[in-house]
Amino acid sequence: MCETPQEVRALIRRGELVRPTSGLVPGYAQANLVMLPQDLAFDFLLFCQRNPGPCPVLEVTEAGGYEPTWTARGADLRTDLPLYRVYRNGELLCEAGDAMDYWSDGLVCFLLGCSFTFESALTRAAIRLRHIEQGKNVAMYVSSLEARPAGVFSGPVVVSMRPIQESKLVRCVQITSRFPQAHGAPLHMGDPDRIGIRDIRRPDYGDYVEIGEDEVPVFWACGVTSQAAALRSRPRLMITHAPGHMFVTDILDEDLAAF
Amino acid sequence: MCETPQEVRALIRRGELVRPTSGLVPGYAQANLVMLPQDLAFDFLLFCQRNPGPCPVLEVTEAGGYEPTWTARGADLRTDLPLYRVYRNGELLCEAGDAMDYWSDGLVCFLLGCSFTFESALTRAAIRLRHIEQGKNVAMYVSSLEARPAGVFSGPVVVSMRPIQESKLVRCVQITSRFPQAHGAPLHMGDPDRIGIRDIRRPDYGDYVEIGEDEVPVFWACGVTSQAAALRSRPRLMITHAPGHMFVTDILDEDLAAF
Repeated sequence: MCETPQEVRALIRRGELVRPTSGLVPGYAQANLVMLPQDLAFDFLLFCQRNPGPCPVLEVTEAGGYEPTWTARGADLRTDLPLYRVYRNGELLCEAGDAMDYWSDGLVCFLLGCSFTFESALTRAAIRLRHIEQGKNVAMYVSSLEARPAGVFSGPVVVSMRPIQESKLVRCVQITSRFPQAHGAPLHMGDPDRIGIRDIRRPDYGDYVEIGEDEVPVFWACGVTSQAAALRSRPRLMITHAPGHMFVTDILDEDLAAF
Repeated sequence: MCETPQEVRALIRRGELVRPTSGLVPGYAQANLVMLPQDLAFDFLLFCQRNPGPCPVLEVTEAGGYEPTWTARGADLRTDLPLYRVYRNGELLCEAGDAMDYWSDGLVCFLLGCSFTFESALTRAAIRLRHIEQGKNVAMYVSSLEARPAGVFSGPVVVSMRPIQESKLVRCVQITSRFPQAHGAPLHMGDPDRIGIRDIRRPDYGDYVEIGEDEVPVFWACGVTSQAAALRSRPRLMITHAPGHMFVTDILDEDLAAF
């Protein structure tokens, strides 16, 4: 097990660690990556500002900048994630181990907070998360809630669902409320139909997990919202992390706590 | 006394209410206004994102938009503030009762949170604020802290100072921490020299108030930071509220509370 974010990023940069980053370097925040052409940067930043639940901005580089000086000085966002996805005109072109072949000085990098931060906090408080216990991806759904549009970007809010024991619901709200930069408090607890989810057993992304008798489905705003909105606008180029293959920052989870 | 934000804005729009807005429509958040040309909008939004303490973004319009549909549907940011300041190339051109003569479709409007929100909360908790009791403007200082630059925008962090009784310091931190969108927790408490303030009796903006024997000077990040940074870049046009003459929104102060 690597001990520091710097060591993990060095391994990843050398191509020696290609795996989902969940559980790597506990205590350090991980981030979603979106790279977009400069002429879309204001609209996308505005979309994030208007939708801080699904799109909590940790850092934005200026055009041509690939070093996130705030969250990981010395890192290179073109090489330091284990797996990338490249989209042309809104269609997936390929997955790639680095972004060097597609990078240009006209790109702006956005790092958005990730639910791993609050999942660690829930786990420390002995709130069990079934998808982690079962080694599955979290279940995600396209809700009937509309994100607030900005310029060319619009779309529905995508939510993640975790079954939580009824006796832990209050604590669960308290704990996740501390981390507004990692999706924060739940968006909804209870009847999935209220937010337009017709069949909880069929997630739009990720894997379904059973909801127990004494459990309530709890829904959080999800970072996939920003990627879905960006793709709908068919940008000529967009580069993101591959699902689960996040950017490991030097920021402590606790540094993201609001109180 | 007007009862609703809508009524106050209507009076202001008709030119029948030209005064500082402190104390108007208690319970509703007020906002700083900055209007800038579209080509500076990404850099300015990025400056705010990188400096959320002094520059908490409540709403941003798209180019040519003057209705803040999120914070005050139906309002017009060109006419609904009691007094405006117009700057050309970084120099004050004039004050004006509305911004109609200077407005164009190439402008973007930014509304930033205001300390009135946390001052109301402190007052409700019986924490006395001397500048309000004495009818003065709050004392503001250019600190030695540098704001994180973004594009063409850079400059020092400007702070406001309020003397707080030592016995109330903890409560004061707790209360203002609840309002990150209104400058949030203090930046510093105690020795002014630590943040580069050589003479506490000579503020750079506003009025000095005495600090009592049992009081500690408490410093918060201040919205003037954004105006100072913007002016340093000498934008060909910038329109702001005149000091103290804020935009009254439909958002409850409590809607801005983080927890």
